Amino acid sequence: MKFELIAFDADDTLWENESLYARAQARFRELLARYHPPEWIDARLYQTEMRNLAHFGYGVKAFTLSMIETAIELTEGQICGEDIKFLIDQGKQMLTAEIVLLEHAAETVARLSQAYSLMLVTKGDLLDQESKVKRSGIQPYFEHIEIVSDKTPQSYAHVLQEHGVQPKNFLMIGNSLRSDVLPILELGGNAVYVPYVMTWMHEAAETPPQGTPGFYQIENLGQLPDLIATLNKPS
Amino acid sequence: MKFELIAFDADDTLWENESLYARAQARFRELLARYHPPEWIDARLYQTEMRNLAHFGYGVKAFTLSMIETAIELTEGQICGEDIKFLIDQGKQMLTAEIVLLEHAAETVARLSQAYSLMLVTKGDLLDQESKVKRSGIQPYFEHIEIVSDKTPQSYAHVLQEHGVQPKNFLMIGNSLRSDVLPILELGGNAVYVPYVMTWMHEAAETPPQGTPGFYQIENLGQLPDLIATLNKPS
Repeated sequence: MKFELIAFDADDTLWENESLYARAQARFRELLARYHPPEWIDARLYQTEMRNLAHFGYGVKAFTLSMIETAIELTEGQICGEDIKFLIDQGKQMLTAEIVLLEHAAETVARLSQAYSLMLVTKGDLLDQESKVKRSGIQPYFEHIEIVSDKTPQSYAHVLQEHGVQPKNFLMIGNSLRSDVLPILELGGNAVYVPYVMTWMHEAAETPPQGTPGFYQIENLGQLPDLIATLNKPS
Repeated sequence: MKFELIAFDADDTLWENESLYARAQARFRELLARYHPPEWIDARLYQTEMRNLAHFGYGVKAFTLSMIETAIELTEGQICGEDIKFLIDQGKQMLTAEIVLLEHAAETVARLSQAYSLMLVTKGDLLDQESKVKRSGIQPYFEHIEIVSDKTPQSYAHVLQEHGVQPKNFLMIGNSLRSDVLPILELGGNAVYVPYVMTWMHEAAETPPQGTPGFYQIENLGQLPDLIATLNKPS
């Protein structure tokens, strides 16, 4: 086997992301603490996010609008302008937060780029993702950047088609079973699952059984070059 | 000359868009009418949009967040939750509004697609633009869809490079001088300006002088096939 294209997810695969959402959501909980218990606030925010997903999509702007909407609902409209402004500012802070690369990300990507064509495939707000890629310092290692509205078998198939690559020659690396692994396996491609310490509820899915063709799991990106070398050995 | 790739802007070139913003902004003005005169409300909203552009980018979600932020500022935080909810609902209505194709758009695109490779190049929210393209009914005529965070000489150069097309063999059609015409002329490409009845202040720019190489202007898309036929005649 020889991989023609190796693609990485970005958020929580190459750099921290969910922690930004967790921090903003903690402040959201504090803001509404005198109205409701934290579990109920979390549950209602998640409901709002799911209800809005079809129209707002993924990303910080969608999250910010869903926080505002939930805050209005949970306070029966009593929330003040200043508090809504605080939520908008949370969103702005998320959009300008320093990019914190995960352990092994920079050296692994640099090393693999010497032998492989690398691609970044990420979902969310177009401008925010572009800005993060630029600020990350690792953009030069990627030949292609693809920002998609959702990661489905269809959207991956479209990306592969545009680049003229067969699924069997494609390897995707990411922290989300739902977005980075399962759609790729469904297409007949190869996927490496690198779990991150926290996963957004919406991205959770069952791990494929051991021995599933094309499915691999590692603990951190430092293990990736060896795994790829093994997979590429003539059998 | 032979065009290898003909690209269309979408919003206000193929379908109505600015009218949705104008309608939402009219309601925004009414909502704040008891606080401020309409001109002042418009000016402050535009200021907020420009200030937020670097982080929020273009599109309905950014516009909605800017409306909310402006409303809080202009009421000194006195705006109630219900009114903020009304602004979020304006955004949702914009995202789900029926696509109204402009005159001649459908038949012109259908006709040109028989002889040319057509592309759609649009900016804004990724999911919203994808959804509009799908709902428009004219997606099948386009070989490629490119959704970019901004329309600059750099972003067009990147798109052309990915598709292996030289600027001189590229024709862009759109209603915005700033976004669809000037960056293309700067690259040495060809651009057709099709003015729309309304233009967002941010997109306004001076029309290039008559005789500028690569620059053409028509009144409506019905005139496009004849113009292209003339340009493609061996001279």
